[in-house]
Amino acid sequence: MKVRIVVIGKTFQKFIKQGVEEYLSRIRRFVPVEYIELSELKNTKNLTVNQIKDKEAELIKKYLSCNVNVLLDERGREFNSREFAAWVEEKINAGVHCLGFFVGGAYGFADELRQRNDLISLSSMTFSHQLVRLVFTEQLYRAFTIIKSLPYHH
Amino acid sequence: MKVRIVVIGKTFQKFIKQGVEEYLSRIRRFVPVEYIELSELKNTKNLTVNQIKDKEAELIKKYLSCNVNVLLDERGREFNSREFAAWVEEKINAGVHCLGFFVGGAYGFADELRQRNDLISLSSMTFSHQLVRLVFTEQLYRAFTIIKSLPYHH
Repeated sequence: MKVRIVVIGKTFQKFIKQGVEEYLSRIRRFVPVEYIELSELKNTKNLTVNQIKDKEAELIKKYLSCNVNVLLDERGREFNSREFAAWVEEKINAGVHCLGFFVGGAYGFADELRQRNDLISLSSMTFSHQLVRLVFTEQLYRAFTIIKSLPYHH
Repeated sequence: MKVRIVVIGKTFQKFIKQGVEEYLSRIRRFVPVEYIELSELKNTKNLTVNQIKDKEAELIKKYLSCNVNVLLDERGREFNSREFAAWVEEKINAGVHCLGFFVGGAYGFADELRQRNDLISLSSMTFSHQLVRLVFTEQLYRAFTIIKSLPYHH
């Protein structure tokens, strides 16, 4: 199986970039990871929030080609870390060969995307769309350590 | 009001340190913050998890002198960001002059502390006790931007 992680917009906070790189390199001990940063939209000043989300959805659609595609969305299903690990393991066992995760832009995802894909929530709290990258990669790394029974998760 | 944040153990990941510093300096635009890193216990190899938590509890007790003391604990009350902001605002309005938040060590808090203090959960997922520092400081900064109606939280 490979994992695809798609995020909207550059990672502009240096500490987030370093943290994400750290966890990506740890996840790559277990599974190949494709990490894709889509360019932020330009000239959005005259667009409504919905127009921004629709345009971002167009960019995202090109990458929805994995067998399973999951949007990280506040209103999605909440897991604890062991449940999330079990969910990932289930996908591996089911023979999923590409598992895609998507981190939206500052306003989240267009409804059209939300209706057609699985939604997972990392927290009932809202994290910045920068910080979500870091929280998610740590959580995915944690999931693999749980699957492999490694001593990271207590 | 002032805020006290107490964490167990040094922040050893550089990107976490930088991120925490970034959000602490932003929070300080709104409120004075005391940020205390307690030294990690030494020679813990022959201690049980409960012994470690009890020893950490002894260290923490010295800092439980705020009017309100909250432990960040997976099994605590879950808020969304607006609810958490409303909770902080309520404390300010109630005249609380010291609001303390505690981030435990790798194994969490001793039951004795958990029974006597408020518990708040940042997520049903487990984050590393390093990452929790960053997630929490971003969330506290977000709370103040919500209280002040600043355009950070969408």
